[in-house]
Amino acid sequence: MTRVRMGMVGGGEGGFIGRIHRLAAALDGEVELVCGAFSADPERSRRSGAAWGLDPARVYPDWQVLLAAEAARPAAERAEFIAVVTPNHLHLPVAAAALEAGFAVFCEKPATRDLAEARALAEVVAASGRPFALAHTYAGYPLVHEARARIAAGELGRVRRVVVEYQQGWLAADPGGEPWRLDPARSGPSGCLADIGVHAFHLAEFVTGLEVAELAADLAAVVPGRRVEDDAAVLLRFAGGARGVLLASQVSPGEENGLRIRVYGERAGLEWFQEAPNTLWLKGNDRPAARLTAGGPWLGKVARALTRTPPGHPEGYIEAFANLYRAFAAAVRAGGRHAPPEAAWLPGIREAVRGMAFVDAALASSRAGGAWRALPADLAEEKTP
Amino acid sequence: MTRVRMGMVGGGEGGFIGRIHRLAAALDGEVELVCGAFSADPERSRRSGAAWGLDPARVYPDWQVLLAAEAARPAAERAEFIAVVTPNHLHLPVAAAALEAGFAVFCEKPATRDLAEARALAEVVAASGRPFALAHTYAGYPLVHEARARIAAGELGRVRRVVVEYQQGWLAADPGGEPWRLDPARSGPSGCLADIGVHAFHLAEFVTGLEVAELAADLAAVVPGRRVEDDAAVLLRFAGGARGVLLASQVSPGEENGLRIRVYGERAGLEWFQEAPNTLWLKGNDRPAARLTAGGPWLGKVARALTRTPPGHPEGYIEAFANLYRAFAAAVRAGGRHAPPEAAWLPGIREAVRGMAFVDAALASSRAGGAWRALPADLAEEKTP
Amino acid sequence: MTRVRMGMVGGGEGGFIGRIHRLAAALDGEVELVCGAFSADPERSRRSGAAWGLDPARVYPDWQVLLAAEAARPAAERAEFIAVVTPNHLHLPVAAAALEAGFAVFCEKPATRDLAEARALAEVVAASGRPFALAHTYAGYPLVHEARARIAAGELGRVRRVVVEYQQGWLAADPGGEPWRLDPARSGPSGCLADIGVHAFHLAEFVTGLEVAELAADLAAVVPGRRVEDDAAVLLRFAGGARGVLLASQVSPGEENGLRIRVYGERAGLEWFQEAPNTLWLKGNDRPAARLTAGGPWLGKVARALTRTPPGHPEGYIEAFANLYRAFAAAVRAGGRHAPPEAAWLPGIREAVRGMAFVDAALASSRAGGAWRALPADLAEEKTP
Amino acid sequence: MTRVRMGMVGGGEGGFIGRIHRLAAALDGEVELVCGAFSADPERSRRSGAAWGLDPARVYPDWQVLLAAEAARPAAERAEFIAVVTPNHLHLPVAAAALEAGFAVFCEKPATRDLAEARALAEVVAASGRPFALAHTYAGYPLVHEARARIAAGELGRVRRVVVEYQQGWLAADPGGEPWRLDPARSGPSGCLADIGVHAFHLAEFVTGLEVAELAADLAAVVPGRRVEDDAAVLLRFAGGARGVLLASQVSPGEENGLRIRVYGERAGLEWFQEAPNTLWLKGNDRPAARLTAGGPWLGKVARALTRTPPGHPEGYIEAFANLYRAFAAAVRAGGRHAPPEAAWLPGIREAVRGMAFVDAALASSRAGGAWRALPADLAEEKTP
Repeated sequence: MTRVRMGMVGGGEGGFIGRIHRLAAALDGEVELVCGAFSADPERSRRSGAAWGLDPARVYPDWQVLLAAEAARPAAERAEFIAVVTPNHLHLPVAAAALEAGFAVFCEKPATRDLAEARALAEVVAASGRPFALAHTYAGYPLVHEARARIAAGELGRVRRVVVEYQQGWLAADPGGEPWRLDPARSGPSGCLADIGVHAFHLAEFVTGLEVAELAADLAAVVPGRRVEDDAAVLLRFAGGARGVLLASQVSPGEENGLRIRVYGERAGLEWFQEAPNTLWLKGNDRPAARLTAGGPWLGKVARALTRTPPGHPEGYIEAFANLYRAFAAAVRAGGRHAPPEAAWLPGIREAVRGMAFVDAALASSRAGGAWRALPADLAEEKTP
Repeated sequence: MTRVRMGMVGGGEGGFIGRIHRLAAALDGEVELVCGAFSADPERSRRSGAAWGLDPARVYPDWQVLLAAEAARPAAERAEFIAVVTPNHLHLPVAAAALEAGFAVFCEKPATRDLAEARALAEVVAASGRPFALAHTYAGYPLVHEARARIAAGELGRVRRVVVEYQQGWLAADPGGEPWRLDPARSGPSGCLADIGVHAFHLAEFVTGLEVAELAADLAAVVPGRRVEDDAAVLLRFAGGARGVLLASQVSPGEENGLRIRVYGERAGLEWFQEAPNTLWLKGNDRPAARLTAGGPWLGKVARALTRTPPGHPEGYIEAFANLYRAFAAAVRAGGRHAPPEAAWLPGIREAVRGMAFVDAALASSRAGGAWRALPADLAEEKTP
Repeated sequence: MTRVRMGMVGGGEGGFIGRIHRLAAALDGEVELVCGAFSADPERSRRSGAAWGLDPARVYPDWQVLLAAEAARPAAERAEFIAVVTPNHLHLPVAAAALEAGFAVFCEKPATRDLAEARALAEVVAASGRPFALAHTYAGYPLVHEARARIAAGELGRVRRVVVEYQQGWLAADPGGEPWRLDPARSGPSGCLADIGVHAFHLAEFVTGLEVAELAADLAAVVPGRRVEDDAAVLLRFAGGARGVLLASQVSPGEENGLRIRVYGERAGLEWFQEAPNTLWLKGNDRPAARLTAGGPWLGKVARALTRTPPGHPEGYIEAFANLYRAFAAAVRAGGRHAPPEAAWLPGIREAVRGMAFVDAALASSRAGGAWRALPADLAEEKTP
Repeated sequence: MTRVRMGMVGGGEGGFIGRIHRLAAALDGEVELVCGAFSADPERSRRSGAAWGLDPARVYPDWQVLLAAEAARPAAERAEFIAVVTPNHLHLPVAAAALEAGFAVFCEKPATRDLAEARALAEVVAASGRPFALAHTYAGYPLVHEARARIAAGELGRVRRVVVEYQQGWLAADPGGEPWRLDPARSGPSGCLADIGVHAFHLAEFVTGLEVAELAADLAAVVPGRRVEDDAAVLLRFAGGARGVLLASQVSPGEENGLRIRVYGERAGLEWFQEAPNTLWLKGNDRPAARLTAGGPWLGKVARALTRTPPGHPEGYIEAFANLYRAFAAAVRAGGRHAPPEAAWLPGIREAVRGMAFVDAALASSRAGGAWRALPADLAEEKTP
C-alpha cells in the first residue's frame, strides 16, 4: 500500500496539535508528510520543516505559495491532501483554496469561525467533489464505536437521555497574553463551545445516531475580561424526543481533558470517559455493570478493526487520531467524494456544518436568556448524501 | 448520657426508609425508640412494633392516637420527638400536630408536598419553639463536611461553578402499581425533584455555603403515562454569581444512588460521590489531585468528629444518617429552638422551605418553557435566625 | 425478639475496637450491653460504663469480679455472653473462665497468643458446650459471602490460585511507646500475622472453602528494634492443590486497611477489596468483567440477607461487624454448641485454632529459612463437627 | 534529523509483537524500516514486506541472507540496526551474528533462552562495541520514570518493600496447538517467568535502583500437561536489605496485562499500574494520596521529555515502546557502545543478563523446594561500565 502524501498548513514547531497530527499521520505508515507551510512566520516554517527532515524546497513561506507550488508538481509526487492546522479564522480560506486547487482536506475543528463560514465551506466541498474530513478525534476511539454500534443495534432500547460533558481547567486563570482562542477575530464569536463543545456535541450525535433538534443554552465568560464564553451549559432535545445535557467548561481547576458521555435508553445505559478510553461501561437495573475493555472478544467488528493492541495494552489519544488519518487515507485513495466503507464514519462536512449550527444556536439562545432555539431544519437533510 | 426517646409515625415493617431510621437512631445508643404508629393499617403497625420489641401499649393504631397518648404520659417517659416517616402528604399534618403537642420533630424529606405547605410548617415550627430537623442524610457524611469546611476556609477561592447530579435508574421501567411517589395527591406536584432533587439542591447549598437565587428548569415525565416528572435538568444561579447545573433522574438504567457534586473555584475544585463516600477529591491545575480519605489526619475537626472508624474502615449511609440522629439528639437535649454548636449544621426548617421553593420554582420554570425564575426573596433572609 | 444481653471485658473508652463492638452490637437492636469490666484500671472502667449509661452496679473493677457477680444474678437478667476485647494474652484466661462459668463468648482475634493456647481454649469450648465466636469481621461483608457462594457453586471452576493481601502503613514509623501489639508477652510471638495476617488467612479459607495444607513464610521486623515481625510474605498450598500467596504488612506507608482477595479458577476469577466493600468483581477471558454491587438482584440469598440498604447506599465496616453480632445473637438464643443455620458461617473455635496454627507454622517456616511447613493434620478433621 | 534505518528479523504479518515494533518505530519518525526477513517461511516474509511497502529486493528469505546482503550495501543505505522479533531460541544466533556483522541490535525479551546464552550474548556485545537494547517496554512509560526519579531523589526514604506482579489470564485454558512459548526447545526452560516475569523483575530493579541479591521461588505448571511453568511466586531480597515479592501468572482468568508495582519506603509509598499507565500514586501516612497524572507540571524532566500529549490526553503501550525506539535511535546515531544521556536508561545487555540470571535462579530455587538462591555475584559488578 503506497503512502498518501500530506501537506500541512500551520502546526509548526512548539504547537501541541501540529505535533499530534504528525504523530497520528505517521503511526500506521499510510500517510507521509511531504510539504508544509507551518507558520505565518516563514522562518519558523523553515525551521519546522528542517526539524522534521522535509525537503527544504517543499517547506513554503505561506499557504498560498504552498498550494500553487504543489499543484504545479507532477501528480505522482504532489501532496494529495492538506491538513489545516491553523487558528480558526484561516480554516475557511485555506480549506476552500485547497479544495478548489484539487486537494483533499483534513481540517482541524471547529470547522470555521461561524455557521455562515461553515455553509460557505460546504458549498466548496460539494463543488470540489474532494474528500473532506474534520478532526473530531474522539470518534477515533474503538470503544466509542462500540458504544455507537450497541446503541444502533438496540441494546439500550430507545435512547431517552444523554449527558455529555467536557471539563477542562486550563483557562481557570488568565493564561497571559490573549491566546487566539480567546480572540473573537481569530476564534469566532464562541470560545469554549467552539473549542471543546463541538467535540461533545459531535460525540453525542455520533454515539447515539440521533440529531439535536433544539437547544437552550447558558453561556458565560466566567473569568473577568473575556470576550468569549469559557463555560457553558446547554440543554438538548433530540429529534424523536430524547433529552440531553451538554456541559463544557474550561475554568474547572484540576480537570484535564474530561470528556465523558453517558447514554440511557429504556433498558440499559452506557458510559465512556476519554481519560480512561479503553473501557466502556454497560449498565442495567437487572444485571451487574459490565466493563468492556478494548481488544476483548466481546467487541464488535468495527471496534476490533480500530484496535492495534491486545487486551490490557492501552491505546490512547494518538492512536484514536491515527484512526482518523487511516480512514482518511482510505478516502483519499478512493478518490471521490464518497468515502469507502471503512471510512464511512469519518466526520466530514455534514458534521462541520452541524457543529457550527450548534454553536450558532447556543449563542443565540444564551443571548435570548436561555430560550429554546432550533437547529436549522435543512441540516437534518444533509444526512443522506 | 441518657437516651432521647423517639416515637415514629410511618416506617412500618417492609419499608426501606423506616428500617434505616431505626438503625441510624440505634447506632450510637443515644436514641431509643419507645413508641410508634407505624402504618395506616393498625394491624401492620402492631406487627411492626412487636417485631421490634416495643411495649404493645405504645404501639398505636394511628398517629392522632399516638400524639394524644404520649402527650398524656409523664414527662420522664413520653416520647421526646417524633420521626415522621410517612408519604409526603402526611408530613405537614403529622409534623404540625406533633410540634403543637410539644414534641420535637425529625421529618423525612421532602419537607412537604409543596411550598405553601412548607411555609405553613415553618410557621408552626417558629410558634412551637421546638427542634425540627429534615432528613437530608447526605449532610451526615464526614467528607461532605470536609468539603464544606474547605470551601468556607477559602481553599478553592471564590466558587464559580457547581455541578450536582443525582442519577437513579429504578423508575426506568414501570414499577407496577402506582407507587405513592408517582401520585401527585400523595407526593405533591413533583416526582423526581421532590424525591431526590431536593437532596442535590441541599447538598449544593450546604457544601458551597451559597444560596441559589434563580433557576431555569427542564422537567419531563419520560416514561409514558406518568403524572410527575421522572427526569430533570436545572440551571442554577447562585447569589454572588456562581453558576450551577443540577441533574436529577430516576430513569437512568444501571444507576443506583449516584449523587455526585463537583465544585470549582478560582484556584481549585473538589468532587464527592455518594457511592464512594469515604473519599473526597481535591484538584488544581498546579498540583496532583489529592484523594482525601475518611479518618485521616488531613481532615478538619468537624469531619473527624463525625467519623467512628480509623482510616480504611469504610462507613456508609447508615452512619451518615446516624450523624443526623446524634446531632438531633443533642438538639432535643438542649431543648430550645436553637441547636447546640455540634448540631448547628443540621438541616432544619429553613432548608425545608428552601427545598420546596426550589421545587416550586423549577416546576414554574419548566411550565414556562425553561424561563428563569427567582427563588422567593424572603427565603434568603431566614438564614440568620 | 428479645435482646441478647452482653457483658464486655476490655474495650474501655478511647480504644478503637471496643467502640466498634458497641456500635456493631447496638445496630440491629438484637444485643444489649448490660455490664462490663472495661479496663484493667477500675476507674477507667467505671468512667466508661458511666459514659455509656450502664447501671453502675454492673460496671466491674476486673473481669474476675464480673464473671462471679454476673453468674450470681438471676438467669433472666445476667449477661448471656461475654465479648472479650482485651490484649491477646488475656483472651485465653478470660474466655475460658467465662465459658466455664456458663457464658457464651464472642472473642476478638487473634484467638490467643499462640497455638498451644488456642488448643487449650478449644478444649474448654468443647467441654462447655457454649457458643463461641471469633471476630473475623470481614466475614460479615455481604459480598464476601457472595464470593464464597459463587465459588461453592462452581462458577469459577476448580480454584487454582489465591492472592490475599492485607496492607497497612501505621507501623511504618515508630508509634512511640511500645504498643502491646509489639510486645511478645502480651501479643504473642507474632506481630503482623497475628494482628492482620489471621484475617487474610481466614478470608482465603472462608471464601474458597479450601484449607491450607502447608506454607512457606518469610517474616521480618522491618523497623529496627522490633521484637515481632511487621511484614510477612507467605506462600500457601491448599489441600487439593490450589496455590496461594498471602501478604501482610504494617510498614507500607499510605496503606490504610488494604485487605484484598483475588481468587482464580479454571474458568473465572473474582476480586474483592475491603476499602470498597460493596463491589465484587467477577472476571473471565471470554466476557467483560462484571461489577456486582451490593443490594442488587444479581446477588444470592445469603448476601441479600446480610444487607440492610438498597443498591447504591453504602454499608461498611460497622455493618459487617454487626452481621457477626446478629448471627452470634441467633446462636446464643439457640443456646447449644451448634449454630442455627443463619449463623452457620460464623467463625468459631475451629477457625480460632486454624488461625493460630497458621501463625505457628509461618513462624516455624520463617525461622527455618522459608522451608515448607505443614499445618497440623488433626486440624483438618475439625471441619465436620 | 535523519531517520535511522532498521531491519527486522521475525515479526511477519499476523503476529502481535512485530506490528507493535513497526508502529512504535514509526511513531516519532526517527526510524525507518528498510528491510526484513520477517518469517521462517520465505513466502510469508515476502507478503509481509509487500504489505508494508518495502523494496522487494530488501525483503529476504532468511536472516542469514539479510545480514549478508545488507552488510554488502553502501554504508549510507544499509540497515543500521536489526530488530530481533523471533521466538526466543533465535535471539542469540541472530543477535550475535548481527552484532558481529556490525549492526546494532534491538532485541525482544527475554534476551535468550537461558543464562548461559545470555552470557554468551554479552560477550558478543562487548566485543562488537555496538549498541544493544532489550525491549522492556514498560521502561518506556513516562510515569515509570517519574517513580524512578522520585525514589532516586529519596522521596520515599530508604526503600523497604517492593510488590511487583504481572497477572494474565490468556493461558488459563489450553490455547490449542503448542505455542512456541510453551515449548522448552524454543522458549527455554521457563514459560511464564521468561515471558512476563522478566518484565516484572526489570521493572522492580529499574524503578527502585536496587539489585536483587537472592530469591526463593515457587513455580508451577498449573494447567496439566505443560512443560514450563505458567504461574510463579518469587520472594526477593535486594542488596541493602529491602524485601520484595514478585508474582507472575498467565492462568488468572480475566486478567489482561496486569503489571503493577508498589514500592514502600520509610516515609512514603508509590503505585503504578500498566493498564492505567498515565497515573502514578504517591502515598504516605501523613498526607492524602496524590494522583500524579501524565503531562502535569508536577512531573520531573525525564517524564516530561518522554510525553507527547498534554494532560488528560492518554498515551499508551505503543508510545511507551516508541520511547525505547527513540532512545535507541539516539544511541545508534551516537554510534558507540555508550549511550548518549537521553538513552542512558535504555535496558541493554546488563539487563539482559540479569533477567536471565533471575529466571535461572528462580528455576533452581523452585527445583530445590523454594530454597533461597543468590544471583551470581559477578552480575552486580556490571553496573558500572
